[in-house]
Amino acid sequence: MTAPAAVYLVGAGPGDPELLTRRAARLIEEASCILHDDLVPDAILALARPVALLRNVGKRCGKKYFEQAEIHRLMVEHARAGHTVVRLKAGDSMLYGRAAEEIEALRQAGIPFEIIPGITAAFAAAAAAAVPLTDRRGASRVLFTTGHHARDREIACTFSPDTTVVRYMPGRDYGCITAALLDQEWPADTPCLLVSSAGRPEQQILRTTIAALTATEPLPSPAILLLLPGAGVFVDTISAECCLHAVSL
Amino acid sequence: MTAPAAVYLVGAGPGDPELLTRRAARLIEEASCILHDDLVPDAILALARPVALLRNVGKRCGKKYFEQAEIHRLMVEHARAGHTVVRLKAGDSMLYGRAAEEIEALRQAGIPFEIIPGITAAFAAAAAAAVPLTDRRGASRVLFTTGHHARDREIACTFSPDTTVVRYMPGRDYGCITAALLDQEWPADTPCLLVSSAGRPEQQILRTTIAALTATEPLPSPAILLLLPGAGVFVDTISAECCLHAVSL
Repeated sequence: MTAPAAVYLVGAGPGDPELLTRRAARLIEEASCILHDDLVPDAILALARPVALLRNVGKRCGKKYFEQAEIHRLMVEHARAGHTVVRLKAGDSMLYGRAAEEIEALRQAGIPFEIIPGITAAFAAAAAAAVPLTDRRGASRVLFTTGHHARDREIACTFSPDTTVVRYMPGRDYGCITAALLDQEWPADTPCLLVSSAGRPEQQILRTTIAALTATEPLPSPAILLLLPGAGVFVDTISAECCLHAVSL
Repeated sequence: MTAPAAVYLVGAGPGDPELLTRRAARLIEEASCILHDDLVPDAILALARPVALLRNVGKRCGKKYFEQAEIHRLMVEHARAGHTVVRLKAGDSMLYGRAAEEIEALRQAGIPFEIIPGITAAFAAAAAAAVPLTDRRGASRVLFTTGHHARDREIACTFSPDTTVVRYMPGRDYGCITAALLDQEWPADTPCLLVSSAGRPEQQILRTTIAALTATEPLPSPAILLLLPGAGVFVDTISAECCLHAVSL
């Protein structure tokens, strides 16, 4: 029996191949097996060698659901068979990526692994919209939340005037988010940004407020919602003419 | 008068050139002027063209302090002179990077600009230590804070069992942090990680608890402190033999 090769948990970033880290790009180019999520676009998968085994293990792969245990089994089996395995996830593996369970599975199986960080959607969105997440004049903290699990509990996010809140996977029921935030005494005129497909060609950026969010047509998934009590001035200047970002992305 | 060239606010990531995004690396390679922070290492600056104008505008450049207004003036002047200017900051510009003020200055001067995200220290540290920031079994939120400004106010961080707290620039007075956290009813045995120079050759990772933090020798700057109430199991497994990360970074 040969020694198992390694598994690389690689963050693919927001989807633009130019926003991969150099190390991530190199590992994708060199891997013999890539187990990727559904959100990783073809433009990134195209970097792989023609002979590499590519497998979509995403949760939205057609109508099928891949069980997490099945992903673990595939990582371990391919590594044991001598493959250099890249487990490729959108954004960064360590944030809302189930890396916790995959790391445990690799440890239990004794498979060497390494984690390569990626640009998570919050930073891609902030860059694309030119809206800083912090500002020493008003926003000193950033809270990452998600609407994916335990919905009602997660929505209940206490208002703090100096905290930017980034909500991953906000879903399509914006009315529910508005109601929950107002219930937590968020000011109705708090500036918000909705960013869909941050850093991809189909990117959409929408400026709104907590009050207006409820009547907003949901943006296509993957989307992210930024609540910006301390950075309103930047939301006001979105799409200023001198910005290149809309053109270049 | 020629049209001004552009300014690129580029995140340099944690310091390993391999953790630059491909776009960031390309811009550094092509820039005619690079205005960089003190924390950007030589290994990254070495990517620049030999004829490029490199200028350290960091806050710790010898004994001198660069005023923020002076940095704004340099960006605008060099762009107006036709330079392709890269304003290069450690990590990601949009988090604790004064990008807010620099964007305003560029807008006021009518200089085209673009923001290129970078890997911020929290993600570099999580990857290096193989400690996920979230875990669907226990940690659903991540709060980024800093000890840099308004010290006493910032330290007061409410305990929530499902929130990972990442403290940038924790300083050297760990006793003060322990006291403030215990005062906020954080459990004394909450697992903590101190990571110094995440993603660089001189990286140090230290596992501790809130109680033990007070007697811990401060790690060299730049450092980051992770409070992990929901991810203790991962802190326990740091330096497991099957990890490659310590070797490869």
